[in-house]
Amino acid sequence: MAILNYLTTTYFDFGAIRMLPKELERLGIHRPLIATDRGVRAAGLLDTVLGVIPGASSIPIFDDTPGNPTEVAALAAFDLYRSNECDGVIGLGGGSSMDLGKAVALLAGSGGSLDRYDPLTGGARRIDRVAPVIAIPTTSGTGSEVSVGFVIVMQDGRKLTFASPKMIPSVAICDPELTLGLPAALTAATGMDAVTHCIEAILSPVVNPPAEGIGYDGLRRAWRHIERAVHDGSDREARWNMMMASTEGAMAFVKGLGAVHSMSHAAGRLPGLRLHHGTLNAVILPTILRFNAGTAPDKYDRLAEAMGLPAGADLAEAVLARNAAIGLPEGLGAMGVTEEMIPDLVPHAVADLSSRTTPRTVDAEVYRILFHAAL
Amino acid sequence: MAILNYLTTTYFDFGAIRMLPKELERLGIHRPLIATDRGVRAAGLLDTVLGVIPGASSIPIFDDTPGNPTEVAALAAFDLYRSNECDGVIGLGGGSSMDLGKAVALLAGSGGSLDRYDPLTGGARRIDRVAPVIAIPTTSGTGSEVSVGFVIVMQDGRKLTFASPKMIPSVAICDPELTLGLPAALTAATGMDAVTHCIEAILSPVVNPPAEGIGYDGLRRAWRHIERAVHDGSDREARWNMMMASTEGAMAFVKGLGAVHSMSHAAGRLPGLRLHHGTLNAVILPTILRFNAGTAPDKYDRLAEAMGLPAGADLAEAVLARNAAIGLPEGLGAMGVTEEMIPDLVPHAVADLSSRTTPRTVDAEVYRILFHAAL
Repeated sequence: MAILNYLTTTYFDFGAIRMLPKELERLGIHRPLIATDRGVRAAGLLDTVLGVIPGASSIPIFDDTPGNPTEVAALAAFDLYRSNECDGVIGLGGGSSMDLGKAVALLAGSGGSLDRYDPLTGGARRIDRVAPVIAIPTTSGTGSEVSVGFVIVMQDGRKLTFASPKMIPSVAICDPELTLGLPAALTAATGMDAVTHCIEAILSPVVNPPAEGIGYDGLRRAWRHIERAVHDGSDREARWNMMMASTEGAMAFVKGLGAVHSMSHAAGRLPGLRLHHGTLNAVILPTILRFNAGTAPDKYDRLAEAMGLPAGADLAEAVLARNAAIGLPEGLGAMGVTEEMIPDLVPHAVADLSSRTTPRTVDAEVYRILFHAAL
Repeated sequence: MAILNYLTTTYFDFGAIRMLPKELERLGIHRPLIATDRGVRAAGLLDTVLGVIPGASSIPIFDDTPGNPTEVAALAAFDLYRSNECDGVIGLGGGSSMDLGKAVALLAGSGGSLDRYDPLTGGARRIDRVAPVIAIPTTSGTGSEVSVGFVIVMQDGRKLTFASPKMIPSVAICDPELTLGLPAALTAATGMDAVTHCIEAILSPVVNPPAEGIGYDGLRRAWRHIERAVHDGSDREARWNMMMASTEGAMAFVKGLGAVHSMSHAAGRLPGLRLHHGTLNAVILPTILRFNAGTAPDKYDRLAEAMGLPAGADLAEAVLARNAAIGLPEGLGAMGVTEEMIPDLVPHAVADLSSRTTPRTVDAEVYRILFHAAL
């Protein structure tokens, strides 16, 4: 089994889930809360995890995580955490469940309301302690298991990205076995999330060559294996590589992300549509690849190289073709976003944390144009 | 300034040395020992460093680090550490000074004799505490500032590689300014050390894709900038990239190294010859690239890609040509190693820690052949 030790200790391989009881003990977690969702339960993955923990029947479980995790859900989970006198969190699921778990751990460790930790008002500095988190992904895309961040839709409608090194889980258990049953559509959408993380992290102007090196490796793996994983979910080699690409994407985005994520976060908070974060990223990515073309030609050549394309290849076209091949929609319009919604989306994109690390400056007027282009 | 946070906090840029007083304070080091060597002092770099520390005149300095650091020198430095009641170490120099500083920090934190921590007898588990170390490289090659290891020639003549995550310095301050005056010959030799770290780490069979991604990035930088740095030491872009490649090489070799290092360590301990570790690596590397060819064709293709060569290119020939272009010797024979010495070298190479992570199994008979080939 691979044990990676860059941002946090990461157990990575088929069967890694067996490390869970030992890690609970090592971290001194005697009464964990499991934060998960109904899909994970229905797929039998919650039972798999409970099956490796002795005395699991008494563990409190919050399985009401929404597709885009909300402050309301985080507070409900935190109530369950407190009433059961929990001392740590197991985040089990995709990015939503792991992120909700991180929010609970922050509330448990530092108190107050989530708003207090808003990174846009310097909230990261107000993070005191965080309860221990064991993150167990059941999709390959978010990388939240090793990432500094978590994303929550606030009660006032904003979708906030909280970020601090203190929010990196205490340990990540990455077991590709848990993804073998992931449906093709979710495999495609979450897989393109990993692709987008790698690409946007690389294009961020923050100087961090090791992170970039990891991003190129992740992109190479994701680009070579996503179609295989989508078309044959039981392809273990493809599943292993997609999960690794996901973890690597999050290791890369310590550099920050870019306009794809700003726009995706803005659209992901729309309460009526419940749009999937990975699908949004996949659909917006070609527009931003076109927009940024020319700002970093060396990076574009290395992106092409990692994707097995000739130098100077049209990366936006390549992503569009790949989206089509794995059954993702062509644009935001096909997902239900309309022109009328754009004025509401723009200020959220401008205010998003990812707007701080775009390779080209993006203001409200530019975002308006970009949203139109991405429809 | 880039701040990297993978294995340890790393401040990286021209002028990074100004972080030193703040880091001494953060780590609670009130009375550091500076471990360095006469070359660093003669180059004025010790004065540069003392110049940024308030009250520097009272700091005890050990500047007797030999080219290949010895247990004898480490004990002498530790005596100085104890008699001055020091509470931390600044390792300032190339790999030798930083490694000696690490040895002192281990003795200060865990006591006993160095032999007790021999990794070949499970010594890493016996490391209890390690005094805080601030590592400041003045060459670009070793990467010891972020690495888990240090290498010491023991009193019984063995050259041992100590390795433990606890031996990663508390903080690394990488200021390429300190390398601008490094002579061409040392720039070449240390630079090829970084190249070798990246290549051997990648070829190690240990599974760690993020480390491999970092290794490819480091190799790409080193390969593109080493000639520039050798031929014009004042080329700041080349110096920055060589220092980054060096740091990345050490981040990559958490995967372990290979037969180049086993052979290089064996030859580096010869007391009469005082052979330079980087030069040894450069000279042995082509032989091992030929030996390993065919074991990992995908990795060889990616190595070629990172070096800007076509897939299937002869990597050994490329390294030989590069060695010649930067003034390094052609083989071990040109460095003074003779056929008669080989029987003495072989068992040391076999016992070396790096022999555990070679892509092809290497035994005594094979090492004998490889040493002959590398002459």
